[in-house]
Amino acid sequence: MNEGARLPERLLLGPGPSNVPVRVREAISRPLVGHLDPEFLKLMSEVQDLLRWIFRTDNHMTLPVSGTGTAGMECAVYNFIEEGDAVVVGVHGYFGGRIAEMARRAGAEVTVVSAPFGEPLDVGALSQAADRVKPKVIAFVHAETSTGVLQPVQPIRQICDRHGALLLADCVTSLGGHPLEVDEWEIDICYSGTQKCLNCPPGLAPLTASEKAMQKLRTRRSKVRSWYLDLSLLDGYWGEHRSYHHTAPIAMNNALREALLIVKEDGLEARCERHKRHHLALVAGIEALGMRMHVDPNYRLWTLNTVQVPPGIDEAAVRARLLSKFNLEVGAGLGDLAGKVWRIGLMGINSSLKNVLIVLHALEECLRKQGYSCTPGAGVRAASEALT
Amino acid sequence: MNEGARLPERLLLGPGPSNVPVRVREAISRPLVGHLDPEFLKLMSEVQDLLRWIFRTDNHMTLPVSGTGTAGMECAVYNFIEEGDAVVVGVHGYFGGRIAEMARRAGAEVTVVSAPFGEPLDVGALSQAADRVKPKVIAFVHAETSTGVLQPVQPIRQICDRHGALLLADCVTSLGGHPLEVDEWEIDICYSGTQKCLNCPPGLAPLTASEKAMQKLRTRRSKVRSWYLDLSLLDGYWGEHRSYHHTAPIAMNNALREALLIVKEDGLEARCERHKRHHLALVAGIEALGMRMHVDPNYRLWTLNTVQVPPGIDEAAVRARLLSKFNLEVGAGLGDLAGKVWRIGLMGINSSLKNVLIVLHALEECLRKQGYSCTPGAGVRAASEALT
Repeated sequence: MNEGARLPERLLLGPGPSNVPVRVREAISRPLVGHLDPEFLKLMSEVQDLLRWIFRTDNHMTLPVSGTGTAGMECAVYNFIEEGDAVVVGVHGYFGGRIAEMARRAGAEVTVVSAPFGEPLDVGALSQAADRVKPKVIAFVHAETSTGVLQPVQPIRQICDRHGALLLADCVTSLGGHPLEVDEWEIDICYSGTQKCLNCPPGLAPLTASEKAMQKLRTRRSKVRSWYLDLSLLDGYWGEHRSYHHTAPIAMNNALREALLIVKEDGLEARCERHKRHHLALVAGIEALGMRMHVDPNYRLWTLNTVQVPPGIDEAAVRARLLSKFNLEVGAGLGDLAGKVWRIGLMGINSSLKNVLIVLHALEECLRKQGYSCTPGAGVRAASEALT
Repeated sequence: MNEGARLPERLLLGPGPSNVPVRVREAISRPLVGHLDPEFLKLMSEVQDLLRWIFRTDNHMTLPVSGTGTAGMECAVYNFIEEGDAVVVGVHGYFGGRIAEMARRAGAEVTVVSAPFGEPLDVGALSQAADRVKPKVIAFVHAETSTGVLQPVQPIRQICDRHGALLLADCVTSLGGHPLEVDEWEIDICYSGTQKCLNCPPGLAPLTASEKAMQKLRTRRSKVRSWYLDLSLLDGYWGEHRSYHHTAPIAMNNALREALLIVKEDGLEARCERHKRHHLALVAGIEALGMRMHVDPNYRLWTLNTVQVPPGIDEAAVRARLLSKFNLEVGAGLGDLAGKVWRIGLMGINSSLKNVLIVLHALEECLRKQGYSCTPGAGVRAASEALT
């Protein structure tokens, strides 16, 4: 047996990747067929239909981008934003900042409207910025993985309507865990990743774009800066013609299909409900341990929970102990929140009673080790009560 | 059992993907660890060391780009070519043309030096073009997957030396199948794909860059147009700091490590020798069947064989029958060679006596079905003799 087989089996309760069910691991290991094989072309169509289903959209342009979530972001930004475009980006976390940086590299005139990391965007400020610059696109992050904030979509859509702007939403950490209605909410450009609430390994980025967005793509003044991510070319491969563009990550597409089938068997509504329930149980436990959530209850993600590090606690030592003693990964703070919060993901199959209890138990043990004082077992008890 | 499990088991003798050995399929299906887990960071270092070994380089900047071979190409072009750079691209096939197109999108002043599809580049013409435009970079395809031509590297290196230009080589279909000496041949920028001679699913692009290339990256006048593929940022993740940039395709990296270990156990020299031997056997068989190879013997790839479609033969019908009757994929012609050749890949573990015999047998059967006349069993006999 080679060394690789000895990788530890972690419980992945960080910001993603989440754990991958056996069915998906079995799917990714299937023998390959060619990327132009009739059987693979069928599989591509199936994946696209399942993505339309989970995005709640009829958009023709719906496909898994051949890269991780960040490639999905770059694909969204580079195709629908071009040199000279006025763009407003709402930045209330690390990933909003990344969108702004990409938009600059795409040659756009970027106006950033910032909110503190842990709060939602200031819709009034966004609105004023839009009035000033008349943006072609307004971009924001629906579920900020770096802060744990869920950003309401509809108020931003209304600003777009006033200016005929496209709405671009990063849904990496909401797809499959939170309600997301691409068509009903009129999100023009939406992308996600596979390794969060879909419980698939990282490596593909589901993306969908409305006909209005595609119209902007077709009437660009300049070519898309990326060839690899140029949707007008990708449409040749994923659209009717199925003509060669690049060799799709075949094994990953097998895995994604299986992961989406599992979500479909679950049912979207039941799945979201489950995420909410276990999130609330975790919060009850965290508070019973005397700790505080970083985000206002009205804006909390169910999929990614930011917990403030209590004063005097060495947060890195806690994470290291969680990993070494409990084989349990939680995430560190990112950007402005580095050192200040832990990020606890409960995504897809990982959103379960068992996982809520184990993370509360383990966290309590690690905190005590550092002299933190709390009622023994209070977290687990509160969580368990919250669920009954 | 769901439908996906019923995908056929193909013998993949096209231009890639090639078949994936069980060890690699097992590796890709292992439970995930996080992308910043100490165990994954170790695995990243192992993959980088193995890539340095197979590229025959000491380059610090050596990593698997998180996308397919085309992402590797885009990463190579976008990092080391910037707006206004004079660039010469040798185009003797479809993929050379793609490099030229990407360089244009990167804002370069591109001079294309073309050769007919099936011939190597005209070094004299390249040299003259370089004298004229004083390029910062000369780019070409070492192993043209679209034509079956192996392009000698050293004469182009000499042109680079005269102008202090960087040498950029696409080695997607040569790495692990043909001799490739990145350091000895002074290739500054080199990339490949996983799904060819490495027998790993598609989804990562091994890439290496010399210190001289990195110096150019560090002194760019403008930011790299892609954020996802910006090597100065990727170096933060794959370099000493291991700071977050994007979530690496963890399962794919597991698979790549295993695939590279298999190549190492084989030994590079023995592996290349095996590719040559089976290539020669295939050629003997093809010619014994009265068909002709498309490329001059001095420039033939061992890994990808272009066979001219005999007059009067419906080439698509042959491929369809190979697939339906023999579960065997061979490739169609691409670009200028569409309809004119078949592309038969013998890559990595697929370069075997068994596969040479089955493809010759199956091809003969399909040709006869269309009334083609040849000595029965002549192909298989000639191949088998060539190997003794």
